[in-house]
Order: sequence, then structure tokens, then C-alpha cells
Amino acid sequence: MMHCASIVSAPSYAFPFRSGSASTTPTAISLTKRSWKPPPSMAKGPVRATVSIEKETPEANRPETFLRGVDEAQSSTSVRARFEKMIREAQDTVCSALEAADGGAQFKEDVWSRPGGGGGISRVLQDGAVWEKAGVNVSVVYGVMPPDAYRAAKGVPTDQKPGPVPFFAAGISSVLHPKNPFAPTLHFNYRYFETDAPKDAPGAPRQWWFGGGTDLTPAYIFEEDVKHFHSIQKQACDKFEPTFYPRFKKWCDDYFYIKHRGERRGLGGIFFDDLNDYDQEMLLSFATECANSVIPAYLPIIEKRKDLPFNDHQKAWQQLRRGRYVEFNLVYDRGTTFGLKTGGRIESILVSLPLTARWEYDHKPEEGSEEWKLLDACINPKEWI
Amino acid sequence: MMHCASIVSAPSYAFPFRSGSASTTPTAISLTKRSWKPPPSMAKGPVRATVSIEKETPEANRPETFLRGVDEAQSSTSVRARFEKMIREAQDTVCSALEAADGGAQFKEDVWSRPGGGGGISRVLQDGAVWEKAGVNVSVVYGVMPPDAYRAAKGVPTDQKPGPVPFFAAGISSVLHPKNPFAPTLHFNYRYFETDAPKDAPGAPRQWWFGGGTDLTPAYIFEEDVKHFHSIQKQACDKFEPTFYPRFKKWCDDYFYIKHRGERRGLGGIFFDDLNDYDQEMLLSFATECANSVIPAYLPIIEKRKDLPFNDHQKAWQQLRRGRYVEFNLVYDRGTTFGLKTGGRIESILVSLPLTARWEYDHKPEEGSEEWKLLDACINPKEWI
Repeated sequence: MMHCASIVSAPSYAFPFRSGSASTTPTAISLTKRSWKPPPSMAKGPVRATVSIEKETPEANRPETFLRGVDEAQSSTSVRARFEKMIREAQDTVCSALEAADGGAQFKEDVWSRPGGGGGISRVLQDGAVWEKAGVNVSVVYGVMPPDAYRAAKGVPTDQKPGPVPFFAAGISSVLHPKNPFAPTLHFNYRYFETDAPKDAPGAPRQWWFGGGTDLTPAYIFEEDVKHFHSIQKQACDKFEPTFYPRFKKWCDDYFYIKHRGERRGLGGIFFDDLNDYDQEMLLSFATECANSVIPAYLPIIEKRKDLPFNDHQKAWQQLRRGRYVEFNLVYDRGTTFGLKTGGRIESILVSLPLTARWEYDHKPEEGSEEWKLLDACINPKEWI
Repeated sequence: MMHCASIVSAPSYAFPFRSGSASTTPTAISLTKRSWKPPPSMAKGPVRATVSIEKETPEANRPETFLRGVDEAQSSTSVRARFEKMIREAQDTVCSALEAADGGAQFKEDVWSRPGGGGGISRVLQDGAVWEKAGVNVSVVYGVMPPDAYRAAKGVPTDQKPGPVPFFAAGISSVLHPKNPFAPTLHFNYRYFETDAPKDAPGAPRQWWFGGGTDLTPAYIFEEDVKHFHSIQKQACDKFEPTFYPRFKKWCDDYFYIKHRGERRGLGGIFFDDLNDYDQEMLLSFATECANSVIPAYLPIIEKRKDLPFNDHQKAWQQLRRGRYVEFNLVYDRGTTFGLKTGGRIESILVSLPLTARWEYDHKPEEGSEEWKLLDACINPKEWI
């Protein structure tokens, strides 16, 4: 069975389908940022809309909420509203903590909205004292998914023909790339997704899901750092359900897999998607707990590693691992690849890419070296705690 | 109508389907380079082979030919054999010329073969005096395409059920990234493709195609350089057919299009694919002429620009354009994306990526600046001659 959920790790972008449908459905090409038309060869292809999302427009100020009026009216009670509030508070908290830890640069903010509702706040800190590039984005997206995708997901009888299914998605997404090769990259992303019940298909249900995760990508292994990071993830999970950590740890190892390399991009953490088989309130609390665990999981590691001396060789290895990060995000990450194809805000989506990256032909770390140990742990995922 | 051809620009990799089939057919995951299994979630997906290609093995020496015995027997006359000879001579000529121009580094060679026939020679020059990274690869691939792809391509009646269709593909592919931001990146790739007639589908034809192109990707525009480059491409085309240059120039502008950016990766050149509606001998001569035009088109530009003084700002702009190169190759290039999915030699495929690249959030060159002029020409392709 296939669900229709998820905003995957692309910062500030809603990815409303699971991998199956995303990879096999022809996608819309809707970017018209600059004043020219796509070449004729682009227009001739099998271009069919999967998800319609309007073009964003910049805003001078942050609105109180990105919810549409009808949703806003229930703002104190609805999960939509409480999730938006949670991710916006998390964005503020995380950005303040990162600025304080960086001690130098500040986040630059871009606010944008879409005419029919929804929008986002992208915050980027670039060339700081500690971070080379750090993006922390929130977004709220109202879109429409094709009836086929909904039907496949929900098992609506094929003799019924529901129209396009409206969906709502909100998420926080962040990638933090430090300068020091001993200080790890962090990614986290928490998202909530709802479909409306299709009006013309009686009995077809309204649905909702949670997704997200937090994962660590060091260039060098400090075992105590990785243990600390995974312990905090486990603590957050264990407050809700003892099976969560082992299940979501494995899911993370499976998801951040660079197939063509036969290695993961980093040392994992937790990842989950399409989660709706628990109480909705419980999952909202769980997502909140996870988001609140980001800073305690990450900043103690940064404090210990940000000022360690390093040499050119170590910096080059970090840059090679950044290259792998680029490969994963551009080739496999569902949020990124989907966002690029369907007209999300490109700069928000690609803020996940590092400031700099490197590719050397046929690079192989010397067996037994620190670089080799990291690579080995990316090839053979370990139990850290 | 859809053909089934092409080895697109991934160095040394055969891409035997046009975009339509490549993007909609589930692909094989066949990388087993290292000693572990893909995670269960990978194996559970809709994994079905599109093209079966065996794993390559390193060779100590270059063989006389990569053709199978049965092909080798006709080696003086067959197009397969003459094409292989042509690309191997072109590889030697281009590498010698580049080494002489670099004056420092030499190409490192990797030879590899596949058990059932075929193989390749990858040559890479890294960290030279002039080039940061230069790859010049040849490959010969024997593979099998699924009958559906062949049937869709060739219009075999659906009541016939041909078995898998054997194919042959050979190509030369190269990407040259200089250090100096005023010296442009060059890519070229020429390839020849044949299918066998399916044995169990009487009347289904044996087919062949040529594909390829040469294109220039500068970070700064020197109009005389771009004119020179395009003039040499036009000269090569005009020797064969007056419609070739305008047609293949436009095809190039259309192909190297980064959809999510609304810009091309560079200033084009020529590109063609699935070319079989001319005399086969004529097209073999044309591909040979194109390959022989690479050095005269490119090296005079390098000689003029390789030692120009530059500042950090100009270097950073080059690195940002290298980022775009990575985006195109990993997200859109058919040879690269197909190769990554089907188990081609990864290091040969990804040698097209630059040594270093850069992504800045929301970077916009100042209107009227030299950087802006380059971007404008990537957004609005120009007629250079």
C-alpha cells in the first residue's frame, strides 16, 4: 500500500508523495522565474501536473500565520495551527542558539507567501565564525494532488472518480554546515501533512501524517559525539514509544543511502515518514520533542569541535564528504528532487547544499586511517548506543 | 515516436534509452562494489532491470580492442570496429595535446573490462598547471535492453513478444575543468549505438544511431572566444550538411538546460542524438570530424586565458558556475543519471564533476556586471556567429 504523504528534507519544501509515485509520475515544469520561455523541447515532453503549487512572492514582514482564513479561524485548536506555531517557535529557538554559538554572523531572513495561502520563512547564516552555511526554514504549503495519487493511496474504488485532492503541508527543515572539519553537519526536518476529503468522492477519508528526522554527518568520527547525538535521539523517542528509536534509527540508515556509492551520507540519527498509526496528539508531541532536541543533541558537539586545529588534508576530506552530501541531495533526496521538478522556492530548497564541495577522481582513504574509519561507518551502519 | 539510443555525456558510460523511457521505467539497482547488501528498504521497492550491464574489472593493460571475438573478426570493416578505432585515436590525440598545453601534470589511466565483452579506458589529469580536473574516457559496452523498450521504439507489433534485445554502444566522453576562471570548461562526447535484431521477432530490424556534441562553459564571456568556438563547430558541420550547425546548436541550447534555474549551464556548441537518417558512412565521418575539431576549437582559447590574472571574486564566481555544472550533471544529464542507477563505473561517470564547486544562498550578480552578462547569455541563448 502506498500513502501520499511527506515533506522530505528539502528545507521549506513540501513533498506530498511517497517515493513510488514521485518517481513514476510525470512532473510539472512550472518555473518561470526569469523572463523567457522553456525551450520547445521542454514543452513537448510528457509534461503533466502532479501537484500544483503557485509561485511564491516575497513579503516584507512575517505574518502572524501562513494559514488560510478558514484554517486561521480554528487556530487555537487545529493540529495545522498548532504545528505551524511549533515549527515557527522551533525556528526562532534554533536560530537564536546558533547565532549565539557562532558569535559572529547573523541569520538573513526571507519571507514569502503564495496567493492562495501558505508561505514560508527562510533563514540563512553564511560565512559565520563557526558555520560556513546554515539554513533553517519553515514553510506552509496548500496544494492539490492528482486524484490518481489519492486513489492509489487510499484505496478509493476505481469506479468513483474523485477530483483533485487538496492537501496541506507544513514543515521545518534545516541543514547546518560548519567550517571546521571536526565539527559535523546537522540536518533536521519535521513536517505535518493533511489531505482534505475529496468533495466528490463520498466516503473517501481525510488523512494526516507526520514525518521527519534529525541526522548527523561528520567528516571524522568522535565516538563520544556520535553516542551523545544518538542518545538524545533515543531519549526523545523513548518518552513516547520504546520501538521508535530502533525503528527510526534503521529507517534513517536506509533513507540517507547513496546507492551509486554503496554508502550512507553520514552516521544517521532518526528518520520517519507517513506516521499516522498512533494518536495524533501523541505524534504532535513527539514531533515537538524531536524539534526541541536538536540543540541539546548538536550544540555540545559543536562547542567541543569548532576550534580544533586542522590541516589541509583534513579540510579536503571534509570537502569530499560535502561532495557526497551534494550527491545525495541532488540525486536521491525526495524533497529536493521533487521540489526542483515542481517549482518550489529554489533558493530555499538548495540552501541544503554546502557552501563548497569537492570531487577527486577515485579517491580512496588509506586503510585504517581516520578517513577510512568514517567511510567504513557510512558503508556499514553501526549501533552507537 | 521514441528511439532507444544514446550514450549521453557521462564519460565512458552507455545510456541506451531516450529520456522518455529512462524517466518512467523503474531501474535496476546493481551496485555491489563493497561487501555489503543494500538495506532491505532498497530491495523492497519496484526494482526491475532496464538494462543489464555486468560489473567491470580492472585490467593491467590496454587491449587491442574491446570488441567481442565475433565483432573483432570483422574489425577492419564494421562500423563498430571503425568507431572504436576512431574514439581511441581521438582519446590519444586529445590527451597528448592537453598534457602538452598543461605543461605539468600527466593523465592517469585506468583500464577496465567486462566479462562478456566491452570495457573502457578512463584517463584523468588532476591538479595540473592549467586544468584542475580533466577526464577523457572511452568505453565499449555490450548490454541487453528490455523488449518493451525495443518494441516501443521500433513499433514491433504488440502480438509479437521479442525477448531482451542485445545492444552495442561505444563512445568517447570528456570534461575539462581549468583552474583559471577566465579559461572555460569544455565537454565533448561522441557515441555510436547498435541494437541486434531480436532473434525471436522476425522482421524486427537491427538499428544504429550516432550521438554527441561539444559545448563550452565559461564563467566569463570573451566574445572572440565564443565566436571562435562556435565557428569551428559550424565548419565541422558545414562539411557535411548545411542544416547541421543551426539544428545542433539549438539542440545543444535545449539539452543543457537547468530547468529549476531557468538557465543553461554554459554557452552551448553542438549536440545531436539518435542520428540515423543519413548515410551511415557519412555520419561516421561526421562524428570523426567533430572529435577532431575539439582541440582546434578549445586549445587556442585556453592558451589565451590560462595565465590571465584573477581575483578572489572571480574565482568564487567560477566556483558558483561549477555548482551549476554539478546541478545539471546530477539532476538532468541523461548519461549521468542513468549510469548512476544502472551500475556503470561510478568513478568514470562522476569524473565529469569539477574538483571544487560552490553554492551561495540567493546569489545574484550585479546588473550589468561581467558575471551578469554570462548569466544573461545562459538564460537567453545567443547566436554567436
